[in-house]
Amino acid sequence: MEKLTIVKVGGKIVEDPISLKQLLSDFSKIAGYKVLVHGGGRSATALAAKLGIESKMVNGRRITDNDMLNVVTMVYGGLVNKQIVAGLQAIDVNALGLTGADLNYMRSKKRPVTDIDYGFVGDVKEVNADILAELISKGVVPVLAPLTHDKEGSLLNTNADTIAGEAAKALAKHFEVTLVYCFEKKGVLLNEQDDESVIQELTHSLFEKYVAEGIIQGGMIPKLENSFEALKSGVKQVVITRADQIYSAKGTTIL
Amino acid sequence: MEKLTIVKVGGKIVEDPISLKQLLSDFSKIAGYKVLVHGGGRSATALAAKLGIESKMVNGRRITDNDMLNVVTMVYGGLVNKQIVAGLQAIDVNALGLTGADLNYMRSKKRPVTDIDYGFVGDVKEVNADILAELISKGVVPVLAPLTHDKEGSLLNTNADTIAGEAAKALAKHFEVTLVYCFEKKGVLLNEQDDESVIQELTHSLFEKYVAEGIIQGGMIPKLENSFEALKSGVKQVVITRADQIYSAKGTTIL
Repeated sequence: MEKLTIVKVGGKIVEDPISLKQLLSDFSKIAGYKVLVHGGGRSATALAAKLGIESKMVNGRRITDNDMLNVVTMVYGGLVNKQIVAGLQAIDVNALGLTGADLNYMRSKKRPVTDIDYGFVGDVKEVNADILAELISKGVVPVLAPLTHDKEGSLLNTNADTIAGEAAKALAKHFEVTLVYCFEKKGVLLNEQDDESVIQELTHSLFEKYVAEGIIQGGMIPKLENSFEALKSGVKQVVITRADQIYSAKGTTIL
Repeated sequence: MEKLTIVKVGGKIVEDPISLKQLLSDFSKIAGYKVLVHGGGRSATALAAKLGIESKMVNGRRITDNDMLNVVTMVYGGLVNKQIVAGLQAIDVNALGLTGADLNYMRSKKRPVTDIDYGFVGDVKEVNADILAELISKGVVPVLAPLTHDKEGSLLNTNADTIAGEAAKALAKHFEVTLVYCFEKKGVLLNEQDDESVIQELTHSLFEKYVAEGIIQGGMIPKLENSFEALKSGVKQVVITRADQIYSAKGTTIL
């Protein structure tokens, strides 16, 4: 099987023109087939504030009422996505920006209301990997915005990490997939005070040991649990790294 | 050659949820291959106003400074485009929203500054029709936002009529193209006071006669000149009609 690298970058990198340019240059140098998944939360929050719309977050997730859905559709599907696509085309990467509605590649369902009503937030139900795989095989580089749709006419806000993970799992039937999550550190750290103490390889038993010892904690736990789930679903490896290391492939490799 | 219908609708229709739903339903019933091209100027002006950005128009064209480019990228490429795509997917039309940057399908050049500086407005230079034709042949329905790019990293604002015309001319090599322009009247009128006085068929000699007689005037002249130019470039026919007539194929047919 051919190799495919799926890189997920957060909002901070893609929202600053200088770091975006560097990222796109590094991304373009990755050998083989590629997919880029982006966030854009900071820009969404900034636009919402200018429009007098309050950003409400619960457990790190954005409450998405109708006005906020319009904001994220504009920012994720329009501004951030198209600036990335234009930036990649400028360096001869044949990018194609997509939301889940485009080509119906990712369908979701509005999250049921429990004690929290997240609003127009979608939980992924179906990934149409065949159409993505066909485009990728032709050299097209999909640029995935964190938006899905319910196939009943509504766009839905969906976490970019989730989009990357679901796309990776579905594309694992077609490619040998490496899933790269970028965050602000060089990798998963053995000592939070020491930015150089990167755990190079992390197996599931080591992960459990580190969690029990309190070395790995907080938001890193669900991120890593999702990574192990992706591996179980056929993804070859997951790398957690800093955006400036995507080309050199340093960071924490989860096996 | 297979038939392809390219429908261009203005902002007014696609920005109102009820008229949009009707339009998409009518559009979905057109037999054969289809492309939808949309505007969104009213929404762009409304968003700009909310953000304290003044909309300046010269000769009906929007002056697009950097802030306004961000607005139109959000509104045309995000909000309007993705709502149309999601709406079409809901009725089983496999829509794919595109700006000219996506797949590098339409490259333009920033309009040179003469006595007027239009800012980030692009004049179309190259249409990559092969990639569009291939998608269309597979049943994909491209939904084209009025944005192009310069392949140097910048998106550029481009008139939706122009996008439709340029796409039609380029796709005429692959399909028997009917180009449908929707506007607020049922067609080109013989008598501006009588909405039913639609000219059914308009040849170039008849057009010249009506212009000389003052029957056709104003903004309709460049619209029709562009239509005749499209015919010269291989487009089979151009229809000027009202959005609610796209399925019945009534209106003025330009031959």
